[in-house]
Amino acid sequence: MFYYDGKLQYPVRVETPDPRFARLLQQAIGGVEGEIRVTLQYLFQAFGARGPKKYRDMLLATGTEEIGHVEMLATAVALNLQGSPASVQEEVAQSNPIVGAVMGGDPRQYLSAGLAALASDANGVPFSGSHVYASGNLAADMYANVTAEATGRVLACRLFTLTDDPGMKDMLRFLIARDTMHQQQWLAVIEELGGHQGTLPIPNSFPVEEELREVSYTYFAPGTQGTEPPQGRWTQGPSLDGLGQFKLEPARPFGEEPVLGPPDPLAFAEIQQMMGAGGQGTRPGATSSDD
Amino acid sequence: MFYYDGKLQYPVRVETPDPRFARLLQQAIGGVEGEIRVTLQYLFQAFGARGPKKYRDMLLATGTEEIGHVEMLATAVALNLQGSPASVQEEVAQSNPIVGAVMGGDPRQYLSAGLAALASDANGVPFSGSHVYASGNLAADMYANVTAEATGRVLACRLFTLTDDPGMKDMLRFLIARDTMHQQQWLAVIEELGGHQGTLPIPNSFPVEEELREVSYTYFAPGTQGTEPPQGRWTQGPSLDGLGQFKLEPARPFGEEPVLGPPDPLAFAEIQQMMGAGGQGTRPGATSSDD
Amino acid sequence: MFYYDGKLQYPVRVETPDPRFARLLQQAIGGVEGEIRVTLQYLFQAFGARGPKKYRDMLLATGTEEIGHVEMLATAVALNLQGSPASVQEEVAQSNPIVGAVMGGDPRQYLSAGLAALASDANGVPFSGSHVYASGNLAADMYANVTAEATGRVLACRLFTLTDDPGMKDMLRFLIARDTMHQQQWLAVIEELGGHQGTLPIPNSFPVEEELREVSYTYFAPGTQGTEPPQGRWTQGPSLDGLGQFKLEPARPFGEEPVLGPPDPLAFAEIQQMMGAGGQGTRPGATSSDD
Amino acid sequence: MFYYDGKLQYPVRVETPDPRFARLLQQAIGGVEGEIRVTLQYLFQAFGARGPKKYRDMLLATGTEEIGHVEMLATAVALNLQGSPASVQEEVAQSNPIVGAVMGGDPRQYLSAGLAALASDANGVPFSGSHVYASGNLAADMYANVTAEATGRVLACRLFTLTDDPGMKDMLRFLIARDTMHQQQWLAVIEELGGHQGTLPIPNSFPVEEELREVSYTYFAPGTQGTEPPQGRWTQGPSLDGLGQFKLEPARPFGEEPVLGPPDPLAFAEIQQMMGAGGQGTRPGATSSDD
Amino acid sequence: MFYYDGKLQYPVRVETPDPRFARLLQQAIGGVEGEIRVTLQYLFQAFGARGPKKYRDMLLATGTEEIGHVEMLATAVALNLQGSPASVQEEVAQSNPIVGAVMGGDPRQYLSAGLAALASDANGVPFSGSHVYASGNLAADMYANVTAEATGRVLACRLFTLTDDPGMKDMLRFLIARDTMHQQQWLAVIEELGGHQGTLPIPNSFPVEEELREVSYTYFAPGTQGTEPPQGRWTQGPSLDGLGQFKLEPARPFGEEPVLGPPDPLAFAEIQQMMGAGGQGTRPGATSSDD
Amino acid sequence: MFYYDGKLQYPVRVETPDPRFARLLQQAIGGVEGEIRVTLQYLFQAFGARGPKKYRDMLLATGTEEIGHVEMLATAVALNLQGSPASVQEEVAQSNPIVGAVMGGDPRQYLSAGLAALASDANGVPFSGSHVYASGNLAADMYANVTAEATGRVLACRLFTLTDDPGMKDMLRFLIARDTMHQQQWLAVIEELGGHQGTLPIPNSFPVEEELREVSYTYFAPGTQGTEPPQGRWTQGPSLDGLGQFKLEPARPFGEEPVLGPPDPLAFAEIQQMMGAGGQGTRPGATSSDD
Repeated sequence: MFYYDGKLQYPVRVETPDPRFARLLQQAIGGVEGEIRVTLQYLFQAFGARGPKKYRDMLLATGTEEIGHVEMLATAVALNLQGSPASVQEEVAQSNPIVGAVMGGDPRQYLSAGLAALASDANGVPFSGSHVYASGNLAADMYANVTAEATGRVLACRLFTLTDDPGMKDMLRFLIARDTMHQQQWLAVIEELGGHQGTLPIPNSFPVEEELREVSYTYFAPGTQGTEPPQGRWTQGPSLDGLGQFKLEPARPFGEEPVLGPPDPLAFAEIQQMMGAGGQGTRPGATSSDD
Repeated sequence: MFYYDGKLQYPVRVETPDPRFARLLQQAIGGVEGEIRVTLQYLFQAFGARGPKKYRDMLLATGTEEIGHVEMLATAVALNLQGSPASVQEEVAQSNPIVGAVMGGDPRQYLSAGLAALASDANGVPFSGSHVYASGNLAADMYANVTAEATGRVLACRLFTLTDDPGMKDMLRFLIARDTMHQQQWLAVIEELGGHQGTLPIPNSFPVEEELREVSYTYFAPGTQGTEPPQGRWTQGPSLDGLGQFKLEPARPFGEEPVLGPPDPLAFAEIQQMMGAGGQGTRPGATSSDD
Repeated sequence: MFYYDGKLQYPVRVETPDPRFARLLQQAIGGVEGEIRVTLQYLFQAFGARGPKKYRDMLLATGTEEIGHVEMLATAVALNLQGSPASVQEEVAQSNPIVGAVMGGDPRQYLSAGLAALASDANGVPFSGSHVYASGNLAADMYANVTAEATGRVLACRLFTLTDDPGMKDMLRFLIARDTMHQQQWLAVIEELGGHQGTLPIPNSFPVEEELREVSYTYFAPGTQGTEPPQGRWTQGPSLDGLGQFKLEPARPFGEEPVLGPPDPLAFAEIQQMMGAGGQGTRPGATSSDD
Repeated sequence: MFYYDGKLQYPVRVETPDPRFARLLQQAIGGVEGEIRVTLQYLFQAFGARGPKKYRDMLLATGTEEIGHVEMLATAVALNLQGSPASVQEEVAQSNPIVGAVMGGDPRQYLSAGLAALASDANGVPFSGSHVYASGNLAADMYANVTAEATGRVLACRLFTLTDDPGMKDMLRFLIARDTMHQQQWLAVIEELGGHQGTLPIPNSFPVEEELREVSYTYFAPGTQGTEPPQGRWTQGPSLDGLGQFKLEPARPFGEEPVLGPPDPLAFAEIQQMMGAGGQGTRPGATSSDD
Repeated sequence: MFYYDGKLQYPVRVETPDPRFARLLQQAIGGVEGEIRVTLQYLFQAFGARGPKKYRDMLLATGTEEIGHVEMLATAVALNLQGSPASVQEEVAQSNPIVGAVMGGDPRQYLSAGLAALASDANGVPFSGSHVYASGNLAADMYANVTAEATGRVLACRLFTLTDDPGMKDMLRFLIARDTMHQQQWLAVIEELGGHQGTLPIPNSFPVEEELREVSYTYFAPGTQGTEPPQGRWTQGPSLDGLGQFKLEPARPFGEEPVLGPPDPLAFAEIQQMMGAGGQGTRPGATSSDD
Repeated sequence: MFYYDGKLQYPVRVETPDPRFARLLQQAIGGVEGEIRVTLQYLFQAFGARGPKKYRDMLLATGTEEIGHVEMLATAVALNLQGSPASVQEEVAQSNPIVGAVMGGDPRQYLSAGLAALASDANGVPFSGSHVYASGNLAADMYANVTAEATGRVLACRLFTLTDDPGMKDMLRFLIARDTMHQQQWLAVIEELGGHQGTLPIPNSFPVEEELREVSYTYFAPGTQGTEPPQGRWTQGPSLDGLGQFKLEPARPFGEEPVLGPPDPLAFAEIQQMMGAGGQGTRPGATSSDD
């Protein structure tokens, strides 16, 4: 169960409203790297957590923190869409938030939300729940969370370069730091689980002897003849799970051309497909004089 | 540029067609953990790769391999939807692939595709390009790729439990092994880049002094009074990037309640919102006798 | 800012796990009538609230309560997917939650979530942020909220008929009652604002003299000749806002056939469209002997 | 069955084409508050109407009117994208509709539609059928319709502020007036059904004694200690359905922490999750020396 | 402007309700081959039609007819979800439409629509406006329409095999015949425009000398060495537009490996990407002892 | 199985980077007329091909070529987002690709991809797998492919008008020519199958006597009285399949008003709907004094 106090986790100030920045902030709210996504991802991982209780608690806690990040960013959007201070009032077209929201900003922040944030990304694409990764496998989920925080921090750093507003920069400094912590946090779980050797291959609960071990540590290079295969740590040395040795092989088919059965009459292919010939159809009445 | 030879990377055999399994295989084709996703993800990372050329090549190579996995799985779907062998012909309702595709299977495999695969997941939800992660940051992308291969291998292992068909099990053994290799491969790049200390925090190119260092390694516990904070590697010891020390703090607001400006008249809120009072409106003609 | 205590708002018990019911519960989680939607809808309305502070607070409070409903329902899904009690162990195929999740249930609850809930609806369609209505107009938003709670309560009542499990029925009784309260709550705001006369037409801040008053209270009946127009409260008596009188008129065009300009050459229509004739094209070399 | 006469319901004139306005009009065509949505919503409510025939007829009639609104708006888009009159010909970049559609307008109106309207919103997001609410419960549907017309009228008023074109303003005056009528119309049905007491709680056909009456009229305030609960009509006085009394209570959990069963081995969690411990895994060969 | 008469274009009868068939009919309503799509596609093509008026009229007329097909199919869904006749009353579980809608049918037809149709496909995926093709080029649109009617007729034929109900078969016979007519109709426009030679290449208004004529009629075969190129009408003989000769060539790159510039510092790649080397990063403090 | 050589099918050069053009190119990558779509469409048609092998091979070959077109266009996007040459360095705001990507370009090319391409269209809408048409009927699929190449060529021609960059124009000349070839190629298959008479009506494998022949070649004109029916090739002469004669008839209903059964009590309509009356409800306790 959840509670609120109506305060912001960190202050949100906007000195010079900028509707274009209000659009960009949407990516951090409803984008694939955004805060709605991590909120729901961590909460759903918690709600479905089986196994050690402490991971459920940790996910619940950080998911709860993230709701407050959505709150901060949505507040930042609303403040960026407000009337600008008197000192810039002259540049009318630019300073009027409505004009700004329409020209270069996200017009739906005005048209649909009345100068406030939407649950969508910087291009107005609505948030999709398909990005809520909660696989039931703790290691897979931790890597999904690292990914979310890594792309989220990259996004926040890029946003940082696009504003000169001291308030916005201050808010982003806080969010960037939290992304740092959250990257650490999910990787710390991997460490607790024994690192690469304790977790790989994910899932580590599937008996490895059931997989086709011959190709488990082989880098296949499907370049055509004359195409140099890229080499690196992944083509030599022990595998990271300590269970094999990397090797490099040109890719080649182990299988043959697939042969599907003929079309099922009830699937209503064209008659010519059913005859197994590619030439003229023999359908009664059909002639080749047409076309 | 790309080439084909029409053969399958690994043999795909189906001894006893099962339209229900044909539906489940869709998750591995068009699902968020599926092969269309990794194909496009690795190829788009390659197409936009800046920096050391060998990573572009590696991504291109593995992206190319993944197209062949889509081919294998789509072939497996088509074979699972074909007429069943004589030996099971008696169980008509079950063995007729069309009935099967409609009852318990994916009806669109028949209705829309004529007993073949679709570019969608096990619930018929179309593949979405929003899942193609290619951030331009190599470490973030590698973690995104590990996530894709970890959830992909978990999926393949679960599919493995849902079929008794020797051909399908054989195909999955191959795909599970390739997922093992690909998990290794992306983590090997992280190792090449210097592991945690060489890559964290992601992006490592943003000056860390610009972030709010006070909260970069602090685990905030937003539990209400009496709620025990979850402790672990993430609440103590050196941070994984070697740049700080984990600590634990109860979450509390650094900010105050946000104060937004009044509604802009041109945003057409209700009059009562503009008056700044929650009571009866003073709109001419309005009375409270209604409702 | 938000907090949690890890407890459920109301107990969630499942006596006889039922994977098919686990699928149906998804509609109440990620469907258009579901709890993710109301959580985000009320929170976004709060985050963008301008005007009387008490409405922001109320929205924040109820949005926070709704997160706990997502938690309850996701927990209910996880419990419905667990191994069934010994007493029904015989009916293996039915009682095994994995088989159940695949046959008649949502296969992705197993394939993608490892026997847990997803952020999608009963057909596996992901939650979409486009359903988060927060228009910036209080009355419009209150009606959107009544709609959400009305369709949500209808859904909960229907779910109630589809389970015999005492624990599930108990949980639904609670959720149905909360939907009752929330319907009341949003309508109470309308009453506070002066009811129909205080709020209509929405937005009440647009000068009514700017609209085409002749058609503001006219029911247009576009039935063809001989089609009886439907009559009711909407065709006679005073309008609900007290500003007009309903009347009934057959629909007829006030306008003429639209005339668009010719195709812009740079838009690359077919040549024949540009010539303004529908017959044979005069394109050099074109003949009508084809086809 | 449906008919057409090729004329517009109301004249659509554009004196000064404006591709940016052509983009904004898309919200009224394919947006969540737009005319495709109400067309389909009213028609689907009619197609599935059970009960008094007059409501089916009314829905059919108004749904039919709305198709004509799509026609008007699509025509307005096409006219806004045409070559501008000579008087503004100088400002080439601005007046060329193709340039305009690309810069500040919706580029797909040119790229995909050849200077015409699309079935999408002002950000190019395609219309989604998920917004077609037709619940089978008349009161719920009427509130959904009020919402559609309230947000639709808010949108039209906002569009009205964004154009100086007399033709566009004239068209919007008509559409705003029709939204006024349609708000009235759906609320008139609620009045016919007996108003709040005749319809609430929705659905009114579920036996109220089956819900948990203790919480049906209770406003839960989940603020943390020290957070003032918002008070209003919803915390005191008789409930609007005449069946209870509002009261205010601090939110607190009725339930305990949920306890899910251990991971099912076939769901392939990590081994460490199955051991019920969060420490080092005991998987053969795993050591903690890694990472 | 549009009108209705409340009658069905063709009778819709259901003798034995079948909720599973009600699910399948959704594909013909809201699927990519369905009637909502053709309704909107033809209407949007009409609304944006530039050039000969008769094509606008024809599109308007047929689009109007298609709304009536949505009406027929939605009615068919509602009738298939109603209580079954007494004669089959014994088979309770099967004959109860609610049970049927949940088991093997579309649960949302009950949960969200109260036993009626939805604006979605047979898997519950909502209709998407992105399928409304209206390119502004008449020939391209006619082929899009042929495709819609061809896939639509294939779908209707497949549905025909999945029902034994005389009423449903009768309705489908009508719809299949209309699809026949509509295929003819769009191809008749192509014929009017001069057939292949009058319309190809589409658009025929782009000067062909601007394209790279050397590859305009060349079939590229990108098979690897030893892969037989598929031959047919497309590898020999005059091209269908009468402007060239088909020929066959092995595919080979005309270009070289692309060389992108280094990462922009403000895009925050990893430092190692910016150094142009794939080895260990030189970031201060980073060591390779990790991982 | 697939292979690559890392080279581009045709050279991609950008002399003057233009972030706005980088946005427009997205339509050709991830739009409905774009290259991801044709790649997957042709490959899925190949993977599910039943009948003459040569069509599978041809589809496989051309699908493989299309992957290379995605590669070319993604490369073009990346090059358009790079730092501009010194000669234009003065116009800072315009020439800085990051500013450009944000203002008038696609901000996510910077925010989410670090100055590279996305798997989405020119408005940032992600590619959707629902556009992958592979019906299992060869003729239907060929028309779907002609549509894809016709709208694709129209798009490429429009893009051609929006750039002055010699490199971009050169690349588009190549792509436009390939679209010419591919239009030819799919129509050549239709010719091989016997043209209109060999393929129509699609599917030609459904017995035509099962359709309602009376309406198979009738153009229905649903114009209201006084609305002139559009006449053309589709209202007279022999049908294109040689099986009938076109004729023109005013549209009129063959059916009556549909009568649905009363609401099922378990679907929880409002009580008033179940009573079959539209007036005041008789629900115990309800009065009409409200509202």
